[in-house]
Amino acid sequence: MTEFIPPGTRFHSLPSPFPMKRGGALHGARVAYETWGELNPAGNNAILIVTGLSPDAHAASNAGNADAGWWEAMLGPGKPIDTDRWFVVCVNSLGSCKGSTGPASLNPDTGTLYRLDFPELSIEDGADAAREVVRGLGIERLACVIGNSMGGMTALALLLRHPGLARTHINISGSAQALPFSIAIRSLQREAIRLDPNWNNGNYDEATYPESGMRMARKLGVITYRSALEWDGRFGRVRLESDRPEEEPFGLEFQVESYLEGHARRFVRRFDPNCYLYLSRSMDWFDLADVAGGDVLQGLARIKVEKALAIGASTDILFPLQQQQQVADGLRAGGAEAEFLPLDSPQGHDAFLVDMERFGPAVANFLAVL
Amino acid sequence: MTEFIPPGTRFHSLPSPFPMKRGGALHGARVAYETWGELNPAGNNAILIVTGLSPDAHAASNAGNADAGWWEAMLGPGKPIDTDRWFVVCVNSLGSCKGSTGPASLNPDTGTLYRLDFPELSIEDGADAAREVVRGLGIERLACVIGNSMGGMTALALLLRHPGLARTHINISGSAQALPFSIAIRSLQREAIRLDPNWNNGNYDEATYPESGMRMARKLGVITYRSALEWDGRFGRVRLESDRPEEEPFGLEFQVESYLEGHARRFVRRFDPNCYLYLSRSMDWFDLADVAGGDVLQGLARIKVEKALAIGASTDILFPLQQQQQVADGLRAGGAEAEFLPLDSPQGHDAFLVDMERFGPAVANFLAVL
Repeated sequence: MTEFIPPGTRFHSLPSPFPMKRGGALHGARVAYETWGELNPAGNNAILIVTGLSPDAHAASNAGNADAGWWEAMLGPGKPIDTDRWFVVCVNSLGSCKGSTGPASLNPDTGTLYRLDFPELSIEDGADAAREVVRGLGIERLACVIGNSMGGMTALALLLRHPGLARTHINISGSAQALPFSIAIRSLQREAIRLDPNWNNGNYDEATYPESGMRMARKLGVITYRSALEWDGRFGRVRLESDRPEEEPFGLEFQVESYLEGHARRFVRRFDPNCYLYLSRSMDWFDLADVAGGDVLQGLARIKVEKALAIGASTDILFPLQQQQQVADGLRAGGAEAEFLPLDSPQGHDAFLVDMERFGPAVANFLAVL
Repeated sequence: MTEFIPPGTRFHSLPSPFPMKRGGALHGARVAYETWGELNPAGNNAILIVTGLSPDAHAASNAGNADAGWWEAMLGPGKPIDTDRWFVVCVNSLGSCKGSTGPASLNPDTGTLYRLDFPELSIEDGADAAREVVRGLGIERLACVIGNSMGGMTALALLLRHPGLARTHINISGSAQALPFSIAIRSLQREAIRLDPNWNNGNYDEATYPESGMRMARKLGVITYRSALEWDGRFGRVRLESDRPEEEPFGLEFQVESYLEGHARRFVRRFDPNCYLYLSRSMDWFDLADVAGGDVLQGLARIKVEKALAIGASTDILFPLQQQQQVADGLRAGGAEAEFLPLDSPQGHDAFLVDMERFGPAVANFLAVL
């Protein structure tokens, strides 16, 4: 399967072998990243961004790639993460297909694609890989690590496993452990892919891509990324133009169905199904309580940062607000000056991508006083 | 495909032809029903129950069938719907496969199963069919019509289309119109069935039943019928015993996944996929605003009942509380003494089936003063 690498992506080679948390190791692996701004002489203005499941490292336009990025409104000169002041690094998660080594990459030991031979992937592996990029860029200590969604997990793993690597932390719509509702959703997304005959235990190619499974998985994702409240106002019960082909029984009829279909079409064939399975499962496995005898607050309290901010959207059903509250509470128990800031965004889990009116100032205000 | 008819089910023949709202008509169709208690000489103690998508007419044990029904705790002597006082009728929805005529029934015009030749099914058709049963039992006026979930839609359609048929109404976790989040969920459930190659445009049989599509649809249903809050306490992050077969990559690992799997297994092959598609779509189509120029409150206000109660669960994401609030507000605008009673149940949309502590007294108290 193809990897999907934006132009201008840079690469950092991981130490070889690169040991994986659940066993095995990668050889000759790499992490894709991009940067914005300049590291200052004191080396104390670096910010690391770790992402959700699907984004690449192209968070915003930069010298290497003028295209708008997935967080264009948040990141740039004069923006909430102000690249006139900060040197910002965004990494593509290990295990992804956007330039970092993952199941869609060539396995140097065999000369064929990893597919399901890729070792079991944990959130912690992504954190360790991100740390290598930070060190490789000559950064001794990050001013802040910012993690969104799955990246909120990755950031917590990074802080726990690499004490002192970051002074502060912003956790956005993230969590310290996966809970059963989100596990159930992701399990069903994986099942949709696995049930697609084209998946074929990971042995598909361009001609036999498991498209219907990926479409189902993406649609279910989008349903849980947004909120009922937003959709009531946005779509209501508006119908599509009535030229739907009559020969397709039970075909699309409402705008909301067409919206999901559009999202699915833009996603499939731009993301590798095996990578999706690996990253999705890594989230289910993540539990900061594992290091503290099952007590997630104790696990969080082992993290040492000076300041932290945990924010999220009141309408998020996938990473509900109480999980960001928990992150703030736990980090505070560990000695951080930690704030929990619930935001009244209608856009659900995805609000941090679109509701700049609320998320922009929250991030800007935190960074302003660092 | 087989129909699934509990022992002791009774049948009422619909007028032939029985015209359908969106066109076409059924010939020789029937509605399955069961009863509890006795109609009193004045004929004023009858209650009709209309159900959600999947239940049969066997709401509780009775003379014809001693098995526990799907609302066993709610219905019976001395229970909230006290069959020592009330004569209770529960109908299986038209279009279902539990005894009423639907896509899994024989089409008398062709001698073969209807499958997708069944006319387009509306909630209103189910309401009209239920009304025929009521009249067939010699009931001039119902003391109350109680509708759960989809049945809440059916009850409103019944009240609107057959003024005077019921004195009062209890709407439980129902709504006056489908909103985009629930449409999106149901659309995805239908897509899972349609994508199953075994569905084959409705032309499956026992040997080629679209099992994986139905399993996906049911799992997604169960996820939206319950609540994240309930599952946090019930499943947390508990794993299955570790004897999962290693040969199945990305197989089940958490208790919540096994819970969904169990629900799916108990559902598939006990419900006809075409019936599922028809009933599911009928909910998406339902909109009481259609009769009032797009104003749902005005549509509700056209319903004339003396008293009404709309109840639901705070954790319901499929039929959220504001929809029951809307039902109460609209019925009140139409002149009813209407109460909205939000219940703090953790079990989501399914709470009315399991949280008897809250739903039982709500129903009992309403009926007690009739």
